Amino acid sequence: MPPGEGAVAVVLLSGGLDSATVLALAVDAGWRCVTVAFDYGQKHRAELLAAERVSAALGAAEHRLVRLDAAAFSGSALTDDDIAVPEAPTEGIPVTYVPARNTIFLAHALGIAEVLEARAICIGVNAVDYSGYPDCRPAFVEAFQTMANLATRAGVEGRGLTVEAPLVQLSKAEIVRAGTALGVDYGLTVSCYQADDDGRACGRCEACRLRREGFEAAGLADPTRYIRA
Amino acid sequence: MPPGEGAVAVVLLSGGLDSATVLALAVDAGWRCVTVAFDYGQKHRAELLAAERVSAALGAAEHRLVRLDAAAFSGSALTDDDIAVPEAPTEGIPVTYVPARNTIFLAHALGIAEVLEARAICIGVNAVDYSGYPDCRPAFVEAFQTMANLATRAGVEGRGLTVEAPLVQLSKAEIVRAGTALGVDYGLTVSCYQADDDGRACGRCEACRLRREGFEAAGLADPTRYIRA
Repeated sequence: MPPGEGAVAVVLLSGGLDSATVLALAVDAGWRCVTVAFDYGQKHRAELLAAERVSAALGAAEHRLVRLDAAAFSGSALTDDDIAVPEAPTEGIPVTYVPARNTIFLAHALGIAEVLEARAICIGVNAVDYSGYPDCRPAFVEAFQTMANLATRAGVEGRGLTVEAPLVQLSKAEIVRAGTALGVDYGLTVSCYQADDDGRACGRCEACRLRREGFEAAGLADPTRYIRA
Repeated sequence: MPPGEGAVAVVLLSGGLDSATVLALAVDAGWRCVTVAFDYGQKHRAELLAAERVSAALGAAEHRLVRLDAAAFSGSALTDDDIAVPEAPTEGIPVTYVPARNTIFLAHALGIAEVLEARAICIGVNAVDYSGYPDCRPAFVEAFQTMANLATRAGVEGRGLTVEAPLVQLSKAEIVRAGTALGVDYGLTVSCYQADDDGRACGRCEACRLRREGFEAAGLADPTRYIRA
């Protein structure tokens, strides 16, 4: 939906390729964007620095970091030292799935949206190259929006709030092309599940594989900095 | 729904009267209960101690405290020092409404439920004496359950998860009677929005008023300890 004058969108920003593209699309559409990143004890800490850089580079009005209780996020290769990040595709829901992560992120975004009287929450979930996470499907996004409008003042008072997932039906190549057309510097973003402190990517995990294949399919140079050349 | 042998329910426990009653009902129904309280920078800190006491007294298997980023909860009389807790009923959604609070609590409970493979999340929301909060209505609870089953492994793998709100259609008097019949010691609970550190109630806020009227209507002695007699 096209925003009204000064209308606020809360944009979830992980520091990765997808959410950077969402931010670029939202800024381009005319939203006043407040970006939110989450510190949930993830191993790939470099993405939090990347989120801050991407927010500023793409012209967000404000960036917020919400700290979540790491003890509440267990049972995933992205948070538990005892579970290794896999380097080959797996069957079913992968071990990198963090239980209820997008629900928790969107719930916090909803609280911020209520206070700011925002009209939209934007999230970079994707149902094509989505790695099998249940909370990346269009039906999930729609159900969250329905719930959000029942949960809040925005819904009761009739302002309403939409949850926008503009990448949900795009391939990684289409995402990379859309962002490049809007001037996104993907060299600032970090997608790797086990990036080093400097934001360099392993080149071997599922997130690295999907990202590299996206640039290849789009016929664009891959600006990712890898740990091993 | 009646639980199977050893089935786990995650029970949101605030330390107040309603959620203590929910826990008593869930334990009585045969659930193995894991209680969760949230530290969100609330002024009424005594309720967190009350939650721990109530969890143990009513036979929960485990109690967890999840710390939430206080900066993410602003704009409510329950969290902001600049907004006073009102002592008379107000029109519309009251200033004690914390934006998206139940959504955020349920989202975290959902993450815990996924890891524990729980079959239910229990919450003490109430649509009768509900103070006008949008996220206490039955339609909200149903929408959260629908979303939760789309968000999670539990939903994808067909186990399913229910969100139980057993008090949703009960009056405060009915709640107090139900809990008393199950042996709940309401003297352990703290409902007051501005209780002192010792858990004594102000006797004047909306939460105190609803609670006192509940005991009166039920014809039961009010075990609440008040700051002023």
